[in-house]
Amino acid sequence: MSLKFITIALSLALSTGICGAQTSSESVKDDFKPSALNQPGQEFPQVNSQGYARFRIHAPKADSVKVSLGLGGQGGTRLAKGTDGFFTGTTSGPMDEGFHYYHLTIDGGTFNDPGALNFYGSTRWESGIEIPAKDQDFYALKDVPHGNVQQILFPSKSTNTSRRAYVYTPPGYGKSSKKYPVLYLQHGWGEDETAWSNQGRANLIMDNLISEGKVKPFIIVMTYGMTNEIKWGGMRNFKIDAFQTVLTEELIPYVDANFSTLANRDSRAMAGLSMGGMETHTITLNKPDLFGYYALLSGGTFNPAELKDKAKPRLIFLSCGSKERPEGVKNAVAALKEAGYNAVSYVSDNTAHEFLTWRRSLRELAPLLFN
Amino acid sequence: MSLKFITIALSLALSTGICGAQTSSESVKDDFKPSALNQPGQEFPQVNSQGYARFRIHAPKADSVKVSLGLGGQGGTRLAKGTDGFFTGTTSGPMDEGFHYYHLTIDGGTFNDPGALNFYGSTRWESGIEIPAKDQDFYALKDVPHGNVQQILFPSKSTNTSRRAYVYTPPGYGKSSKKYPVLYLQHGWGEDETAWSNQGRANLIMDNLISEGKVKPFIIVMTYGMTNEIKWGGMRNFKIDAFQTVLTEELIPYVDANFSTLANRDSRAMAGLSMGGMETHTITLNKPDLFGYYALLSGGTFNPAELKDKAKPRLIFLSCGSKERPEGVKNAVAALKEAGYNAVSYVSDNTAHEFLTWRRSLRELAPLLFN
Repeated sequence: MSLKFITIALSLALSTGICGAQTSSESVKDDFKPSALNQPGQEFPQVNSQGYARFRIHAPKADSVKVSLGLGGQGGTRLAKGTDGFFTGTTSGPMDEGFHYYHLTIDGGTFNDPGALNFYGSTRWESGIEIPAKDQDFYALKDVPHGNVQQILFPSKSTNTSRRAYVYTPPGYGKSSKKYPVLYLQHGWGEDETAWSNQGRANLIMDNLISEGKVKPFIIVMTYGMTNEIKWGGMRNFKIDAFQTVLTEELIPYVDANFSTLANRDSRAMAGLSMGGMETHTITLNKPDLFGYYALLSGGTFNPAELKDKAKPRLIFLSCGSKERPEGVKNAVAALKEAGYNAVSYVSDNTAHEFLTWRRSLRELAPLLFN
Repeated sequence: MSLKFITIALSLALSTGICGAQTSSESVKDDFKPSALNQPGQEFPQVNSQGYARFRIHAPKADSVKVSLGLGGQGGTRLAKGTDGFFTGTTSGPMDEGFHYYHLTIDGGTFNDPGALNFYGSTRWESGIEIPAKDQDFYALKDVPHGNVQQILFPSKSTNTSRRAYVYTPPGYGKSSKKYPVLYLQHGWGEDETAWSNQGRANLIMDNLISEGKVKPFIIVMTYGMTNEIKWGGMRNFKIDAFQTVLTEELIPYVDANFSTLANRDSRAMAGLSMGGMETHTITLNKPDLFGYYALLSGGTFNPAELKDKAKPRLIFLSCGSKERPEGVKNAVAALKEAGYNAVSYVSDNTAHEFLTWRRSLRELAPLLFN
C-alpha cells in the first residue's frame, strides 16, 4: 500500500463523512478489547465495537507520540501524555473494518508499536491492527481441516539466487496421487510474499471455503513481485520483464516439477491486488497460453481490444472496494460481457484500498476458478 | 532467552575481558557493512570485520536513545545525538559471533530498531543482528536443493484450538513413497515455533548437510513449547503436562498421519535448546518408548540413575557454548559412557547461551541421528 493509496483511502473516508470529530467522543462505547493482532500478552492497541482504535505507548521521557492511523486533521492520532509515563489516545472516528497498517512517530522518529504484530507493507515491517468485520467468520481460524503454507526456496538463474515463495496446499494434499490446479496470487506495492497468508489470511479463507464445499481444492503460490531494482520509493522504473521471467520461466516450472499440479492453461490462474493486479494484467496478456483465469483485485481492468486475437480466458474477475472506483470495474465487466467474455465483477461493501477488500475478493473469486 | 541468560552471557563476556573500552576505539576498523538481518534497503545497523556493531536511529526530538546490545558499564550502548536528527553509536567492544536479539530504549520506552528484522524472543518480537561467524558457511543460503518449511495447523483437543507448528521436509520429500524419520526440535524460553527456522536457520543447515552427503534426510517438527498459562514472566509455574499432552498425544499422531514418516521409536528424536532442553529431558524420561534419540542444547544433562530401567536411548547428545559450563556437559557424558550409554558432547567454541551455539549443535547432532 503506497502512501498514495493510503492518502486516497483517507480522503475518501473524510469526504464521505464517516468519522466524528474528537470533541464528539462522548458517544464512544467503553467496550475496548485488545486487537486480535497484538503480540502475545499485550493489552494495547485496543478496538471497540464501533471500530474506534485506542493506543497506549510507554515512553516516559518523550515529548510527543503520534499514531499514523486515524482520521483527524493531522493525518493521524496524537496521543496525550499521562503522569504514569504512558501516552494514550483514541482515533477520532471508527476505522474501516478489517486490517490496517500503522506506525508511531515518537519525537520525530518512525517506530512500530511494541504491542502489535508486524506485517510487511510500504517496504517495511509495519504494525498491524484488526477492526473486527461483521463478516469476519469467513477468514477466522476454525476447527476445520487445515491446509499447509509451505516456504519454498526455488532456484532462479535470471536473478542468480534462491528465491522465496509460499505455497498453500489444501487439506489432504499429498495423501493420494491427486493433481491440483494452481492460482498464482500476487501482493501489492511495498508488500511481499508473506502478505497474502499473514494479513490476507488466504489459507484460512481457503480452508473454510473447502470445508463448506464451496470450492474445489486448489494450490495457491505467492512470491515476491518487485523483482527488479525498485529503490523503495516508486514505480517509475518498474519493468515487468524481470518478474515475468522469474514467474513464468522459473517458478511455474519449479512448482509443476515439485508439486502435484495439473500443469496446463485451464488449470492455472493468475490474480493480484493493486500493483499485483497490474502485473497480472501485463503478464496474462503477454503469456495468454499460460493462464486460463485472470483476476485483478483493486488492480485495474481489462478491455476487449487488448484481449482480441489471443487465447480466450475462461474467466476475467475484476473487483475493488466500494470506496474506490466501483463504476470502473462494473463498466469494464459490462464491456467484456458484451464482447463475449466470461467476466465477473465484485464490489466489497464499505471498504477502500485495503485488505478486507482483497480477503472478500478471494472469497468471491475462489469458487469461480477451475470449473 | 531470559534476562537471566543474557545477564550470564554479558557477565562472562566482561570477566573474560574480550571487549575494549569506548576510549580505546581508535582500533575499530572502518569496514562496517549493513547487518545481514536488516530490513530491505536499510543501511543500519552495521557490523565490522572485528564484530563491532554500529547503530543509527532517526529521532530528531528525542533526548536519549540506548541500544540493549553492547558491553559497556551501563549494560548497553548509549547513542549520541547529531545535528542531523540521527543518534549514532558503536558497541564498546566486539560482539560474540552469530545472532543477537536487541531493542532500543527511546526516552524511557522500549521499541525495536526500524532498520532491523524482528525475531521472537523474550516473549516479544525483538530486533535481530547477525555478527558474521568464521564458520558461517554451514548456515548460509546456497545454490543447493532446498527443503520446504511448512506451517501446519493441527487440531488440539486438550487446548481446544488449532495449534501451529512448522515442519521441515527435506529436498525430494513427496516425490516418492519414501518414509522419513522425524526430529522434534524445541525453542527456548520466550521464543516460539518460528525460532529454529528464523534465527536458527535449521532448514538451511539441513539443506547444506544433506547436499554434502553428511546427513541422511529427515523431517524436523517445531512447535510452541510454552503451552500452559505462563504469564510472560517466569518459569515458576511451568508444568510439563500441558505441553507433553500436545506433543505426544496430538502433534506426533497428526504428523505421523499426515506426513510420510517412519512412525517408530528408533526413527523419532527429541531435542531442545535451553528451556526446550528441560522439556526434552522431562518428556523423554516420561515417554521413553516414544523417542530413540535425546539431545539437550544448553539445556542441562542426563545422569545414568534417571535412565535406569527405561528403554535405552540410541543416543544422548549434550552440548553448550564454551562460555557456558562446558565441564558440566563433558562430565555428564563421561558418566553416561561409563554406564554404557552412547553419549556425545559438543562444546561450541567462543560462544555463550545464544543461537550460534545452537546452530552449531544442530550441525553436530544431525549426522548422528537415525543411524
